[in-house]
Amino acid sequence: MRYELYYWPTIQGRGEYVRLALEEAGADYVDAARKERGMAAMMRTMEVRGRTPPFAPPFLKAGKLVIGQTANILFYLGSRHGLAPKAEAGRLWVHQLQLTIADFVLEVHDTHHPLGPSLYYEDQRSEAKKRSAEFWKERVPKFLGYFEALLEESGGGFVTGRRLTYVDLSLFQIVEGLRYAFPKRTKAFEHQIPGLVGLHDRVASRPNIKAYLSSGRRIAFNEDGMFRHYAELDA
Amino acid sequence: MRYELYYWPTIQGRGEYVRLALEEAGADYVDAARKERGMAAMMRTMEVRGRTPPFAPPFLKAGKLVIGQTANILFYLGSRHGLAPKAEAGRLWVHQLQLTIADFVLEVHDTHHPLGPSLYYEDQRSEAKKRSAEFWKERVPKFLGYFEALLEESGGGFVTGRRLTYVDLSLFQIVEGLRYAFPKRTKAFEHQIPGLVGLHDRVASRPNIKAYLSSGRRIAFNEDGMFRHYAELDA
Repeated sequence: MRYELYYWPTIQGRGEYVRLALEEAGADYVDAARKERGMAAMMRTMEVRGRTPPFAPPFLKAGKLVIGQTANILFYLGSRHGLAPKAEAGRLWVHQLQLTIADFVLEVHDTHHPLGPSLYYEDQRSEAKKRSAEFWKERVPKFLGYFEALLEESGGGFVTGRRLTYVDLSLFQIVEGLRYAFPKRTKAFEHQIPGLVGLHDRVASRPNIKAYLSSGRRIAFNEDGMFRHYAELDA
Repeated sequence: MRYELYYWPTIQGRGEYVRLALEEAGADYVDAARKERGMAAMMRTMEVRGRTPPFAPPFLKAGKLVIGQTANILFYLGSRHGLAPKAEAGRLWVHQLQLTIADFVLEVHDTHHPLGPSLYYEDQRSEAKKRSAEFWKERVPKFLGYFEALLEESGGGFVTGRRLTYVDLSLFQIVEGLRYAFPKRTKAFEHQIPGLVGLHDRVASRPNIKAYLSSGRRIAFNEDGMFRHYAELDA
């Protein structure tokens, strides 16, 4: 079965966590909205006259299933592709961690859109500065400190031990994204998260991920995605 | 097995979605942090020197399992207590909807905390006004319009058809919360969501929910929770 991933074709965004999982797994998939007429198909699937229309991209078509919400997609893929434990307790634990990452990603988005997603960045620049300051002072240490401690406790190189899960792939993306969006702040902060930096490097050097990152399938970071570089927010 | 729910003892917050599910199911549970020494036990569980420490409340102890993240807890409880379909496709669909509700709840929180959760409301009042305006102009119609359309499509009185799921309980809470936090705006908007208003009333009149709402177990809304009433945001 060939999976069809549907996500905005010009950004990494939330879709990237799914792309990384599919690539690491060597799964047979197509990034459907990047194909001809793919966007039209994506928009059509979100209309409610269907049984289970997703609220927003990304969503994954897997045979007859249409699965929306990033963490939900990863939950589905994880145990099927060796990217999560098979037993219920382990699946719930890894999923819980992914949901915490999802919360963090929303806060990343709020750094440049504190007044809401429907307004332009240019209309909320001063608020974005305040929110970014709070984000780095309070939220980054809290979230990344949590994962750093889990990594240390695990001792196996990955968050849950010696086997990579989709959570490790997502944490790689978090480090990548922060480095892109806030290069100065991230550089100053990285000594506090040596475990996560090591994890990032270990993920980046895995054969499938390495091949993906240097391929045209990996979209470059840009200022339409979740991680945006605005120099004024990286003071 | 008696479940132990751990959540901040003085607010509804995210814990309320779990409380409603446990109450509707008639499950044997204790709201542990509201008991003597419960807060200390809650804080202790979140320390990383344990196998699966949650990032934040709410979390549920179910035997040896410690399950964090609201939607993850509901996923666990749902199929065990007749509050979600048993088949995988149905479970994933209902979970996807709950994750969309979780996204909405975070945006509710941002209406009074656009500059971040670590600052006081009083330090971000003017930004909160702007965010609340955008929330009501763009986000409420988008999110609630989605669920209203699903309800209409279902035709069965509940979002997935004729059987209540935990998503219906959560939507009840959304309507309750918006009415508390933004009474004027909600009143003016309700004619656009007759299905959700009807669903709210149907949930409220279910015997277990009715008994719960009039009991001391239901904490009153207040200005420490997710739904806060600030008259100036309800213009």
